[in-house]
Amino acid sequence: MSNQFGPDYIRAIAPYQGGKPISEVAREFGLNEADIIKLASNENPLGMPESAKQAMLAVMAELGRYPDSNGFELKAAISAKYDVPQDWITLGNGSNDILELAARAFVHQGQSILYAQYSFAVYALATQAVGARAIVVQAKDYGHDLQAMAEAIAPDTRLVFIANPNNPTGTFLPAAEIETFLQKVPQHVAVVLDEAYNEYLAPNQQYDSIAWVRRYPNLLVSRTLSKAYGLAGLRIGFGIAQPHITDLLNRIRQPFNVNSMAQAAAIAALNDTDFLQKSAQLNAAGYRQLTEGFDALGLRYVPSHGNFVLVKVGDDDAAGARINLALLKQGIIVRPVANYGLPQWLRISIGLPEENAAFLAALKNVLND
Amino acid sequence: MSNQFGPDYIRAIAPYQGGKPISEVAREFGLNEADIIKLASNENPLGMPESAKQAMLAVMAELGRYPDSNGFELKAAISAKYDVPQDWITLGNGSNDILELAARAFVHQGQSILYAQYSFAVYALATQAVGARAIVVQAKDYGHDLQAMAEAIAPDTRLVFIANPNNPTGTFLPAAEIETFLQKVPQHVAVVLDEAYNEYLAPNQQYDSIAWVRRYPNLLVSRTLSKAYGLAGLRIGFGIAQPHITDLLNRIRQPFNVNSMAQAAAIAALNDTDFLQKSAQLNAAGYRQLTEGFDALGLRYVPSHGNFVLVKVGDDDAAGARINLALLKQGIIVRPVANYGLPQWLRISIGLPEENAAFLAALKNVLND
Repeated sequence: MSNQFGPDYIRAIAPYQGGKPISEVAREFGLNEADIIKLASNENPLGMPESAKQAMLAVMAELGRYPDSNGFELKAAISAKYDVPQDWITLGNGSNDILELAARAFVHQGQSILYAQYSFAVYALATQAVGARAIVVQAKDYGHDLQAMAEAIAPDTRLVFIANPNNPTGTFLPAAEIETFLQKVPQHVAVVLDEAYNEYLAPNQQYDSIAWVRRYPNLLVSRTLSKAYGLAGLRIGFGIAQPHITDLLNRIRQPFNVNSMAQAAAIAALNDTDFLQKSAQLNAAGYRQLTEGFDALGLRYVPSHGNFVLVKVGDDDAAGARINLALLKQGIIVRPVANYGLPQWLRISIGLPEENAAFLAALKNVLND
Repeated sequence: MSNQFGPDYIRAIAPYQGGKPISEVAREFGLNEADIIKLASNENPLGMPESAKQAMLAVMAELGRYPDSNGFELKAAISAKYDVPQDWITLGNGSNDILELAARAFVHQGQSILYAQYSFAVYALATQAVGARAIVVQAKDYGHDLQAMAEAIAPDTRLVFIANPNNPTGTFLPAAEIETFLQKVPQHVAVVLDEAYNEYLAPNQQYDSIAWVRRYPNLLVSRTLSKAYGLAGLRIGFGIAQPHITDLLNRIRQPFNVNSMAQAAAIAALNDTDFLQKSAQLNAAGYRQLTEGFDALGLRYVPSHGNFVLVKVGDDDAAGARINLALLKQGIIVRPVANYGLPQWLRISIGLPEENAAFLAALKNVLND
């Protein structure tokens, strides 16, 4: 049958649904792009750092050339920042690329991959794409139940995904809990610790996951520059692991997976501590603003350690979709999370103060409708 | 064993070896980057078009946002240029992404993928990465033997890769031969027609592969903007196929696989017919220059229809590596092709007139050494 190409496990996949782009909402709802506020994709409301722009302009003349497949200069910057050798580093087309490479490198069809309920949607997609079986462990207080996860590892499990902080719920796992978990995981099971939102953690929550990479040969820490570093549109993330893992990922990595602009911009952004600090401060203030607003509206939310808040907008299972649509009509884009099994909730990215205020005002109107 | 992660078929892969970057050769051989000539990666010696630069600058302010996952504007441009609906188009992070998505979407572990001896190295890598069996059909005059390929399709074959023109040999398949082949391929076997070098074909060689896409529901045509369009550093390619295929690729495509800069630049480049024409003319003149030089040196080459020439630099199996190293020491980067089973040959990308001349002069010296 011509329409029956591909393995069953591929045909069963429902593609990822990202935050609606501003241009798409403008087309669909007949709005001006300039009037639309997007708080849907956990992007940095400051945009990209000026330092990264300058770095991009400097390499623009070279774009007829292929990128450096080995990412020498960027790996040197990461190596210096995290004090790891260059051959511990894998560059990705966003950390999404790292997550997917991990599934493809560690797991074959019929084995299992383990992750938590309400954790990042790409874990499920990466599992399905390799024809693996998903073991989904029930969440505890909307976050990972690491003890239950350790107990749920099956003989055929080859990979565990952990997100800290977790998206879309914003929950945080203290370092001691993660280390206890790592001690329990059999050595032949790889662990991906996805730290996409790490830079938003309060100073007293920060922990040294690179020390764990040195200690646990089955650990891969993944990071992105799409969030606090403001480079979502360029696509750049990276993984840090011991060389036997890096080597494996490199065998299936597309040779030119990271474009030249992203490599240049990332070097600048990684060293732009002012921008990072400013982003974290803006985020902390925005978190207070949003949660005070939710408190005033009597809405329940999950305390978040990322740059977003999961808020419950109703008690019926159509609430998320209904409020989302009403907000879209007012030109405000947030993220419905029914696909995560959270149909009564919405995920709101923390924006600029005026964006947060406009969202809260619109939400109040919509809830009173 | 901690160093035994991953399926056997992944651990057996030898990663892709791209052309050496200028910066790497400068480091290794103690040369100035400005003195190095790179004719190793089939890049456009004109660099990227000015129109694409302007398009990039216009979107630079938006790079804190994720790219449009659906690539609406770029698909609209491709749709207009090739007269196909938007849902026939898949955008890739270079056409490498399309080739790999095809292997993952159409084939599972243990099935087979068919391609020709001396065809693009990524076909073999994509085959290994899904744990499939490779059926490699012997080349005829350094190009595809389509009749032998049709006969070699096995019951478990799910995908055939064809390159036209072929890289690294530059051979060309006339349209009638391809159509005869397509008629012979069983409907459940997908065919990827990789046209990365299509824009370099002489006008009388051009053919309408999109008409075949309409007629053959198992055909996926892949194109890149890394060659004649001069956007190698940005990573952008695309596939055109009927919607049931596009839909399948979309299920495993990374949601933000194509960065915002690449999307914007590609729209401009696709419409920049002046640049494309200039690139093709420069290439035709450079081809004459190189092949006349090879004739003068008494060197055999494979007549090429791409932006590169495969030339035989010696009769012993160390010749390619030896001449390549000697050229590198003189600051000239070309591509050894021993990994293709062509250890007596080198692949030379066609450069600017002065680059071609410098290469020919260096080659003459090196051969006389």
